[in-house]
Amino acid sequence: MGGKRPIIDPWGTTRIDDYSKLFKEFGIESIEPLVSKFPHPSRYLRRRVIFGHRDLQRIIEAIRDGQPFAVMSGIKPTGEFHLGTKMTAEEIIYFQHLSPKAVASYAIADVEAYADNGIPFEESAEIAVANVADLLALGLDPKRAYVYRQSAEIRVLKLGSMFSRGVTYSMLKAIYGVKQFGLYISALIQVGDILLPQLKDFGGPKPVVVPVGADQDPHIRLTRDLASKYHDQFGFIIPGATYHKLIHSLTGEAKMSKRTPMSYLLLSDTPELAGEKVLNALTGGRETVEKQRKLGGVPEKCVVYELGLFHFIDDDDKVRQIYEECVKGIRMCGECKCEHAEYVARFLKEHQRKRKSFIDAARKLLSQK
Amino acid sequence: MGGKRPIIDPWGTTRIDDYSKLFKEFGIESIEPLVSKFPHPSRYLRRRVIFGHRDLQRIIEAIRDGQPFAVMSGIKPTGEFHLGTKMTAEEIIYFQHLSPKAVASYAIADVEAYADNGIPFEESAEIAVANVADLLALGLDPKRAYVYRQSAEIRVLKLGSMFSRGVTYSMLKAIYGVKQFGLYISALIQVGDILLPQLKDFGGPKPVVVPVGADQDPHIRLTRDLASKYHDQFGFIIPGATYHKLIHSLTGEAKMSKRTPMSYLLLSDTPELAGEKVLNALTGGRETVEKQRKLGGVPEKCVVYELGLFHFIDDDDKVRQIYEECVKGIRMCGECKCEHAEYVARFLKEHQRKRKSFIDAARKLLSQK
Repeated sequence: MGGKRPIIDPWGTTRIDDYSKLFKEFGIESIEPLVSKFPHPSRYLRRRVIFGHRDLQRIIEAIRDGQPFAVMSGIKPTGEFHLGTKMTAEEIIYFQHLSPKAVASYAIADVEAYADNGIPFEESAEIAVANVADLLALGLDPKRAYVYRQSAEIRVLKLGSMFSRGVTYSMLKAIYGVKQFGLYISALIQVGDILLPQLKDFGGPKPVVVPVGADQDPHIRLTRDLASKYHDQFGFIIPGATYHKLIHSLTGEAKMSKRTPMSYLLLSDTPELAGEKVLNALTGGRETVEKQRKLGGVPEKCVVYELGLFHFIDDDDKVRQIYEECVKGIRMCGECKCEHAEYVARFLKEHQRKRKSFIDAARKLLSQK
Repeated sequence: MGGKRPIIDPWGTTRIDDYSKLFKEFGIESIEPLVSKFPHPSRYLRRRVIFGHRDLQRIIEAIRDGQPFAVMSGIKPTGEFHLGTKMTAEEIIYFQHLSPKAVASYAIADVEAYADNGIPFEESAEIAVANVADLLALGLDPKRAYVYRQSAEIRVLKLGSMFSRGVTYSMLKAIYGVKQFGLYISALIQVGDILLPQLKDFGGPKPVVVPVGADQDPHIRLTRDLASKYHDQFGFIIPGATYHKLIHSLTGEAKMSKRTPMSYLLLSDTPELAGEKVLNALTGGRETVEKQRKLGGVPEKCVVYELGLFHFIDDDDKVRQIYEECVKGIRMCGECKCEHAEYVARFLKEHQRKRKSFIDAARKLLSQK
């Protein structure tokens, strides 16, 4: 790992706007040529919200040949599902349903929540129940899924401790920058999460895809490095990944944090509150209605447009129509916001109804592990 | 932790001859005033092989008041028991038998054996069986003992990962020096081992004593620091320790390593081989028999004398007699070596007979965890 490469910080709030850098500097490949290889490309694939990948062809081949593969991700149980965690969850669910031979693995990163945020395990265990209910409500099939808390999965902790032999402090510093010691440990445990589906107990080596946000690539690079170092011992196939764009803050701030609740949507927001957040959001509109009629809006800069594009409008034609109406100056921001607030509210109502019905199942699923 | 303190390296082979340094610089206290407080001071206590302690009065009080306490140690399963591991084992067994309220905890540090020596877990599991058979043959009562492998004890791995939040890289560097990353992790896991007996599952906070060699103090200091940092969460009582002198190399080399097998005794050595090692050992004798008759020998410099003093002669009068005969020039090295070789052989024969009968019990004890 060269010291001169820019460091992407998965624990930070770096905004990565120029995704092409990732292609050049970190070797992530464009998703472009692979989208059409999927039988039914997901919304994220069709709209290039997933913009890049590593070794995704292995998964495509496994689907084609009816071979087993795994899709793996996780969540740091520090709070309710937001649009970022929703995205990852939907990606897992999408891959899980692509083949009867697909299994999903979902790590509740409670060790990381402790190391990074100081959240006690009892507290994160409760948050995890809510998170898993979201996951089930979004469509995860629990029969082909392994959902677990890191702190209860000895194989992951054991892998994490084994991998500590495969790294050096300088290597971790080059990948992550200077961090709290505990974060390096949780990074190694996370590598354990990603490689878990390839242990004998889980049927042995197989292709694995990890859908992540672009900011999580350091974890993927560390994992690929260690998978290759420990290949002789475990037979690991180097895991692949897909990379999605990061959702922007609703209000245009650089940071989405608990201190700025208006800047992000939670799947637990009441439809009213969510609506208010949408109405309050930054658009790509012009200073005046007149100008907007004349020049058209700029959907590329519009967070409201992004909400529909990424999350809340499934119909591609509808999204295209909104785009065209906007750039042609036919669609004004006020009405557009109201329309999107309506989409969001409709989704949340339906989702929250389902989610409620899955709480018991979530608790049960987690208590098994 | 001040950066200027000399670093004792538990993974190295530093010979610590000047134990008084440990009192001054690291705050270890002399065992002297406490020896008489024990109902039946052990050979190691009586002869000041155990020369120092931290907070041992807590254990003495617990014995006096019939309160529960724990004695804790462990072994890195890299090979057969030698005189150092025998010493720790006998110390544990001694404390375990001091009170019906005493429990013993014995960690098989297989994670450390992997991180430090690259020994695969399957291999160390077999070594551990032999080690535990030694432990039982030396007198451990398995009914009041918890013997486990680190890699199979999720509570220890979980504590280790939690404690990573309580340390910094500079702090670890100050305690241990610059080491492989994996060793820092195994140090944290070892802190988990030491604090395990105070978890709720094991009856909650209680005084704990860790009998160690003088070179292991860095682990004790790190543990005491973390026990205090995590006091609010777990109620930990700061663990204490006893410190024993390190046995010298039989042949006078600075390092006892697998490359110099004549320099150390294994409890698995045949009595013949052990005898040969003793006959080959360095003594405190003079250059000539004449000089020795005139000046006497120097038992303080004699590794053969040390064998009897530390390990193989239980009768204090006998040891005293040997000492006096030596310094008075009555006892010559040749006969003295033969006599000690005989003590060693007698011990090994008896021990190996017992040990053999404990192999199955050892396997069973370890398979429970």
